[in-house]
Amino acid sequence: MRQVQVQLAAAGRAVRAMAAWAEQLAGVKGVVLDISGVLYDSGGEGGGVPIPGSIEAVEKIKASGLKLRFCTNETETTRDKFVEKLQHLGFNILVNEVTAPAPAACRILKERNLRPHLLIRDELVPEFDQLDKTNPNCVVIGDAADNFSYKNLNDAFRILIGMENPILLSLGRGRYYKETDGLKLDVGVYMKALEYACDIQAEVVGKPAKTFFQSALAEMGVEPEQAIMIGDDIVNDVGGAQQCGMRALQVRTGKYRPTCVSGYAPFPSLSDPSIQYLFHFQNVILLNLEMLMQQNEILR
Amino acid sequence: MRQVQVQLAAAGRAVRAMAAWAEQLAGVKGVVLDISGVLYDSGGEGGGVPIPGSIEAVEKIKASGLKLRFCTNETETTRDKFVEKLQHLGFNILVNEVTAPAPAACRILKERNLRPHLLIRDELVPEFDQLDKTNPNCVVIGDAADNFSYKNLNDAFRILIGMENPILLSLGRGRYYKETDGLKLDVGVYMKALEYACDIQAEVVGKPAKTFFQSALAEMGVEPEQAIMIGDDIVNDVGGAQQCGMRALQVRTGKYRPTCVSGYAPFPSLSDPSIQYLFHFQNVILLNLEMLMQQNEILR
Repeated sequence: MRQVQVQLAAAGRAVRAMAAWAEQLAGVKGVVLDISGVLYDSGGEGGGVPIPGSIEAVEKIKASGLKLRFCTNETETTRDKFVEKLQHLGFNILVNEVTAPAPAACRILKERNLRPHLLIRDELVPEFDQLDKTNPNCVVIGDAADNFSYKNLNDAFRILIGMENPILLSLGRGRYYKETDGLKLDVGVYMKALEYACDIQAEVVGKPAKTFFQSALAEMGVEPEQAIMIGDDIVNDVGGAQQCGMRALQVRTGKYRPTCVSGYAPFPSLSDPSIQYLFHFQNVILLNLEMLMQQNEILR
Repeated sequence: MRQVQVQLAAAGRAVRAMAAWAEQLAGVKGVVLDISGVLYDSGGEGGGVPIPGSIEAVEKIKASGLKLRFCTNETETTRDKFVEKLQHLGFNILVNEVTAPAPAACRILKERNLRPHLLIRDELVPEFDQLDKTNPNCVVIGDAADNFSYKNLNDAFRILIGMENPILLSLGRGRYYKETDGLKLDVGVYMKALEYACDIQAEVVGKPAKTFFQSALAEMGVEPEQAIMIGDDIVNDVGGAQQCGMRALQVRTGKYRPTCVSGYAPFPSLSDPSIQYLFHFQNVILLNLEMLMQQNEILR
């Protein structure tokens, strides 16, 4: 008798969880995927390791008929080379499916006639080949890793402090990311450093900037309320997407840490600890969307 | 007739300025001097250049009978070596007249049984010789200059992010300072970087921390309202001293820049652009104090 009660309670919980998911997913037409920490972990030989199930998850989402866009803050190299690396790792991904900060920054610089001083990785420099960089009138920083030397940061600082209205464009505002050998400081940390040094506010190009998500949505032809973001970063992926009017889920891979960040509500990803990988999310999403479609058929 | 009026107006302004100074200086018994940017500009061969008149100003203040204390955020080397350098430059200064962050930090670390990971200049390391630095349970940062490499900042970050309650002690929170070859990023910039990376608040040891000014005052045996701070930094010298209940003046040497920082009122230094150097301040101070004493004699 008692055993039956326990089983019934468990079944009740499962049904309620499913209903919660179905509610979350109603009307979804497009998926926006973060790349690093969701599709793969960067670093080490070969440039990274796919996260189990993620190659298959991308295939399944593409096959499902959902619109799909990749939205990354990656600035380790040009978008072309980055996509090439992901293809070598086994992902079905094309350059024109990827929204990335450096191409977005180039557009902004051209529009505003800005000549950038670059503090980025050497590998990313070719992305800015088309721009005049003489006598700079702004600073662009990305995740520069070892290029974040004292001398380089000081050079960027001196350019900014010498301007009447300093312009600092930051390719993202992440705190840190995970490579195969551990956590690494990200561009946001150095953005904060320069902001404090010059008493200025940087303009962020990349997640969590609203305009960045909006351009990804425009590329998909999908409204914010029809899209769901899946990322590992509670602030830049989940918070940024939510502020743009999208739904958002947080995977428990990549830089995920079980700490609370006040002001963000990534329901239901945090409520079910068994759902950790993109693969799980994609399974739940596709299963629920299928169910929703069947329900609609029945209701018709 | 018109000329007389002009002369009378000028004389009136001078009298009012003098009265303002006298009001500012009533009851002063001790002077607290910042060192870098007030006594000398650091950098270059010989480690720096005295600012004109400042060697004489120190002598005059000492001869006047006013209490004098030097209060610095300098962490380029140990206090002993630093004072030695200033003596070589010609200053009448002794080690036990100087309040500096590293000795203050050592006291705090000992009191709280903390084992520091140090991110400071190599020359400052001997100041922490007496402390156990194995298996660190806090991070201490100072103005580390070229030691602020990406690798070193990342090492400090990994120690902090791995702790349940990260403790970051920062030797000052300055934005930048001036060396003979230009402006240089100061420790505060990297403090902000680590604060953002780990979502923590650093404990500042040094100006503008109240406890730091209080320990300088205790060494002099003078109450805050009896002391006047002279520095080149509107936030760390002027603002910090004012928040501690002291009066404060800003010289127009060192890192002084003619920009407004809201919330600080360094009257009257900003109201009289002819008063720029410590030498001028000392002249005005000693002249006014003499006048005040004579007035008191007359009133008696």
